[in-house]
Order: sequence, then structure tokens, then C-alpha cells
Amino acid sequence: MELLNVDSLNKTLEKLYNEFIKSGHSIATEEIPVSDALHRVLVDDIVSQIDVPEFNRPVVDGYAVKANDTQGASDSIPTFLNIVGESIMGENCNISIESGECVYVPTGAMIPKGANACVMIENTEMLTKDKITIYEAVAEGKNIVKKGDDINCGDIVLKSGRQLTFSDIGFLSSIGVYNVKVYKKWSITIISTGDELIDENNEYKFGKIRDINTNLLASCAKEHNFNVVKTYLLKDDSIALENTIKESLKNSDVVIVSGGSSKGKKDMSSIIIDKITSSGILTHGIAIKPGKPTITGFDKDSNTFVIGLPGHPVASAILFKFLVVGLYNIITKCNKKKYTCKGIIQENMPASPGRMTIQLVTVDDNYNVKPIYGRSGLIHTLSDADGYIIIEKNQEGINKGDEVLVYYL
Amino acid sequence: MELLNVDSLNKTLEKLYNEFIKSGHSIATEEIPVSDALHRVLVDDIVSQIDVPEFNRPVVDGYAVKANDTQGASDSIPTFLNIVGESIMGENCNISIESGECVYVPTGAMIPKGANACVMIENTEMLTKDKITIYEAVAEGKNIVKKGDDINCGDIVLKSGRQLTFSDIGFLSSIGVYNVKVYKKWSITIISTGDELIDENNEYKFGKIRDINTNLLASCAKEHNFNVVKTYLLKDDSIALENTIKESLKNSDVVIVSGGSSKGKKDMSSIIIDKITSSGILTHGIAIKPGKPTITGFDKDSNTFVIGLPGHPVASAILFKFLVVGLYNIITKCNKKKYTCKGIIQENMPASPGRMTIQLVTVDDNYNVKPIYGRSGLIHTLSDADGYIIIEKNQEGINKGDEVLVYYL
Repeated sequence: MELLNVDSLNKTLEKLYNEFIKSGHSIATEEIPVSDALHRVLVDDIVSQIDVPEFNRPVVDGYAVKANDTQGASDSIPTFLNIVGESIMGENCNISIESGECVYVPTGAMIPKGANACVMIENTEMLTKDKITIYEAVAEGKNIVKKGDDINCGDIVLKSGRQLTFSDIGFLSSIGVYNVKVYKKWSITIISTGDELIDENNEYKFGKIRDINTNLLASCAKEHNFNVVKTYLLKDDSIALENTIKESLKNSDVVIVSGGSSKGKKDMSSIIIDKITSSGILTHGIAIKPGKPTITGFDKDSNTFVIGLPGHPVASAILFKFLVVGLYNIITKCNKKKYTCKGIIQENMPASPGRMTIQLVTVDDNYNVKPIYGRSGLIHTLSDADGYIIIEKNQEGINKGDEVLVYYL
Repeated sequence: MELLNVDSLNKTLEKLYNEFIKSGHSIATEEIPVSDALHRVLVDDIVSQIDVPEFNRPVVDGYAVKANDTQGASDSIPTFLNIVGESIMGENCNISIESGECVYVPTGAMIPKGANACVMIENTEMLTKDKITIYEAVAEGKNIVKKGDDINCGDIVLKSGRQLTFSDIGFLSSIGVYNVKVYKKWSITIISTGDELIDENNEYKFGKIRDINTNLLASCAKEHNFNVVKTYLLKDDSIALENTIKESLKNSDVVIVSGGSSKGKKDMSSIIIDKITSSGILTHGIAIKPGKPTITGFDKDSNTFVIGLPGHPVASAILFKFLVVGLYNIITKCNKKKYTCKGIIQENMPASPGRMTIQLVTVDDNYNVKPIYGRSGLIHTLSDADGYIIIEKNQEGINKGDEVLVYYL
């Protein structure tokens, strides 16, 4: 019985990363409009060039006053102030107020010089067009956001490696950042191989297997914001496979070969990946369950990773996430927040000695976590899953009733 | 002080939904390749037309046997069987085995008639080209997935309203579903108004406010898989606003008017939305915090929702999610799983009597949940948030140390 020399997932990522760094390559960057930058990863820290807000402004529609002037004012004993002007939204306010004076300021307009608080319009009453009754005493700063309260000019507001959310896009717009430098999306080619595989272009014959991995991995790639350059469904033909990989190196950052995991086919992929890539095969197998028969290499000349994934669909999707998305995140230093929850596992779960286990699970509304077992990579199990838990290779297994950390898919 | 007549969020959604149903309209559907259907919502149940697997097949490379023939076999006392053929991947296997016979079957190929278990190749040894040593006793069914084990022909495998995940795409491919009928994405136009607002096309003048909501809401729309038809940044000009809304009705499913929330501007949007839509204004305000000054209507002739959102960026983003995404999900019966976690709130939080409160929060690795307070919709707060919690309008508030349910953003 042959024992493959396998690496841990981290070791695999480290080897690939080192090979990439050694090559002197990096992920290309581009400057794009912030409005197109949803889910893209920032190359540089974003430093605010402005204070936010840029001037003192009220959070309500009302009258800008000197707080002292309102001391003791109430519904029964109001105070009276002279209206000396109005601050206009979007315009510089050149008015300066003295004691006994006030200025109308709508929400978001500029507070005039001399004012240090704002009385809500609801707590005032117009007496004449230039005199107002104030029914409320306000403390200094009341209803005002001060210049720089949120952000100071020079602050780092978003860090390099940030994967931009829709809120970040709004936020960058608020500080006048209209273009951002981001890492280019990786271009990914997916090659599935197998004489037994058919897709929508083939007539079904009894015994054939409908190809899952091409569409599955292409969707995984889209889910993670990569471009899918092209997909291929090839017969088990080493010349065709070699030529297709070579062709794909020209326009791809990552070439995925999704092969049958049976020995003969794996050998074919291995030999070709070893021959074609400048690194040769870096990893012959990963100590991860499911997903052991995974082959990796990096080609310096074309700046392309070549990854042979197992045919097992669940394994291939999981390894796509851990290897390809993992590598992109490591290289771009992307620190995307993982959505997780804690729940209670409903069954005993054995560990796989020496291997990290990725176990698909469902999570119900009461955070009961149930493992989903499927035989031989039935893709249904992945479709039913809400997330996965990780059992580390040196862990003893998990007991029913234990609290577990679930990573949402 | 004017008290607006406000609706609850559910009442608002109900009014809009009823108006839509009454109009006899529905969301258009389209049939698209499954490979393009990531995140799209299924119109109909998907019924499997095949058994999965379609034939008995092994989960390992090995020899298909009659389980009885292996009884008592072990490393020290092996059993011998005659090889009567090989099952080829992707081909119909016409072999039938008798007692004392076996057939080589690679993972995923067809188990021959007569066989009811499979011995892993690792537990066998080739003696001659037609005789093999078996070192393992296998029970009936061992290492075999039976026809229909995963899915039976006629089973509903994905339900109407399912928002397709990358796994679903793989799954549908596995049962030969290559085209799916899905609801069309909504086309959304975003109109921001305000004399004070500037974007990248305007020169900055002191006092101006950089428009946030156009990019924020467009990104929200993309995040939720809608098409953004066009965005506008308009001055406070009721004729321009009316004309722009009218023009947008022609090619939009939803027109968003993001106006200043100040009284005058809100009135302008109200009057125009009331005049233009066949329903007139349905909701003048929603009992939700933040987000009260929200206006809704539906135009039967163009089959378009018109929604006036508050200028407050956080409120506008939250209401986009609850109203626009909410409506689409209600109409398509989309039952997308919400990603949530439980955590412990770190501060006392007051309720807003009579209003549902949406409170942005951060969640740390220990599931400590902290509210993020921002003044006047500073967008930074949304950018920092991991999720939100909901305090219902009849709730008393939340005490420090309480367990809370966090919805991830």
C-alpha cells in the first residue's frame, strides 16, 4: 500500500506562497472607480485627506446658539433670541453670532462662528421674522457634530488588504475618495477530465457520469470574485491535457485541473503538472479530509498556479476555498472577516488521525449543529450544508454536546 | 409638533406587496444556463428526472464481489477469487458475476450484476491476470453506493424560491439540469437629490457635502444581485426630479429617491411620488429607527416601485435591505438562509418606544457584541459594523450581559 508524502494545508500554502514570492511576481493592481470596487481588495492604506465632518454641523434642523444664552430656558420660562441669518445647506456660512443671537441651520449645514450648540426647531417658536422663542436649555455641544469628530485628516481609515464592502464604498465616497487601487481579480481556467464525464453537449448514455466539477468550481470562483476565463471538459488524454494546460497558462493566474482521483488519472495530471510548471510538483497530497489527492505547482514564466484538485466534488469545492481563495488572501493580505457562529454538536464526531477534517454541517435556529455525511462526495451534502467545522489533526474528536465553531459557507 | 402617521415595517411591505399583486403584475422570469445562475432565485421546484447514483457504484477502486465469498478472509487467511472482467468508467457494465468471481471496478464505475460489495484494491493482491487474493471480509453493501441512495427520480431536490448557491449549481449539474427558470434581477435606478451634494464630477467648495448615498445604494443593490440601471445626482429641483423619476419608470423595477430628510425636501419627494405613482403614497413613514422618513408607492402602469429613502446613509442602507431586498424576497418567496450568531451584549441598550430599532454592532472572536453609535448617520459606523441586532418596538430594551441574536450584514 503506497503512502503518499502529504503536506499540511498550511505547509502547502507556504510552499506555493514562497515559490510565488521567489519568482519576483506579484498580483497585478489596477486603479478603478470606487463605484466599481465592491468586494475588491485594497492595495494601500486609505488615508483621509479631509476632516469628517469638514465643519461643525447640527444633527437636527434648528437654531445655532451660544449655549449660555439658553440657560434656564424651559416651556414655562422661555428665552428670546434674535435671528441674525440662516445657514444654507452646501454653502460656506460667513455669519458670526454674538450673545443674544441665533442662526437657523438645517441638518448638515454649517454652524456659524460663535455658536456652540443647536436648539431643535421643535423646541422653538417664531415670534417675528427676526425673533425666536427658545423653550429648551442646551449644553455646549448639544446637537452638534464637530469638525473632525468622526475622522481627522491624515487618519488611516481603511487598511491595505481590506475587501471593500458596500458600506466601505459609501464611506470612501463620503471622504472624496473616488478611485481606489485594488488587486486585479485572478483569472481562472477550469479543466475537468474524465472519459466517463458528460455535460450538456453530450448525449447521455447509461453508465456515463454527469460532470459536476466544472460548473461547481466555476461558481465557487465567481462566488469569490474571480474571473472564469474558460472551462474545458476533456477526455483522459494526456496530450490534450498537456496542451490545454499550456494554452491556459497564457491567460490564467490559476489553472485548475479537476481529475478523477483514481490512481492512473492522478498520475497523468501529476506528470504533466510536474513537467509543465517551473516549480515542478510542490505538493503531492494534503493532509486534509476530504481532499487528500491534491497536486500543486507554480509556473514562474507565466506567473500561474496549477492546482490538481480531487474529482470528489465536495473535496474540490472545499480545497478551492482553502487553497485558491486562501492563496489570494495571503498574497493580498486580505483580512476578510469570517462569518461564524457557535453551536452545540448533536453527534459524536471522530477525528482523522494526522489529517485536518473539514466537516460539513447544518445549523438550525437553536444553533444545534449536525454533521452531514455523504458517501463519496455526493454533491447534495454540500448543497444542504450551512457551514463547516474544522477538526484539527491533533484533536481527539468531538463529543455530542460540545460547543463547536461553525464557519458559514 | 407634527406627528407623522407611520406604519410598521411589516405593514409597509404588506401594502406594497398587495398593491403589486392587485396590479396583476409579477416579476419576469427567464430560463438561463445553470452555469450563469449563481445567486438567482428559482421560479419552480426542481424535480430530479434521474436516480442518483443512476447505478450501483463503488466509493473506492477495488473488486466487486459477492459479500458471502469473502467471509472469514483476513491478512493471514486470504480468499481467492477469479477475475472475470473489468468495469470501465463511463460505460455500461454487462458482466454478471457468480460465486467465486469478481470484477475490477474503479471508483464511480458500474458494479456488475450479482455483486453486492466491493473490496478495496489495497486489501487485495494480484496472483495471476485472472486470479486475486482477498485479504478482507466485507459485509453486503460495503463500499457501494446504491442506485437512488442519494436521490430518487421524482424527488423534489430544490424548492421554488431557492436562491442558488455555488453548491446548488454543482448539484443541478449532477442531475443533468442544465437550464433553470429564475426570476429576473430587478433593475434599479438611484436618484440622489440635494443642492449641497457633490460628487467626483463637481469641484469641491467649502460647505458642500460629498454625496454618499448614490454609491452606497448602488453597491447595496449589487451586493443583493440587482442591476443598477442608472444613478443620478440632482439639485433640489422638483421639475428635474419629477422628469427623472418619470423617465426612470420606463426601465426600472424600483426607483429609489434618496433625498435630504429635511422637511421641505421630503415634502417635494412626497408630492411627486404621490402624483406620479398609480397607488399614490402608500407609506409616509416607517416605525423603524433609523429610517423613519421613508416614502413608498407603486406605479401599476410601469410596474415600478418608487421608494423615497432618508438621506441618513446608515438608514438608507438598512431600509434598502429591509424594503427593497425584503420585497423581492417576499414576491419570489425567496427563503435565503440568514447568517446569524448569538453573542453577549456589552452595554445596556434602550428601546425606542413604538419603533423597531436596528442597531449596528461589532462581534469579536469571543462573541462579545458591542453597539456602534454614530451621530447623524456617519457612514463610518456602517463600515465598521459586522452585523445588526433588532430591538422590537414592544421590547423593553436590552441589558448588558443579555444574549442577543446578531444578523451578519
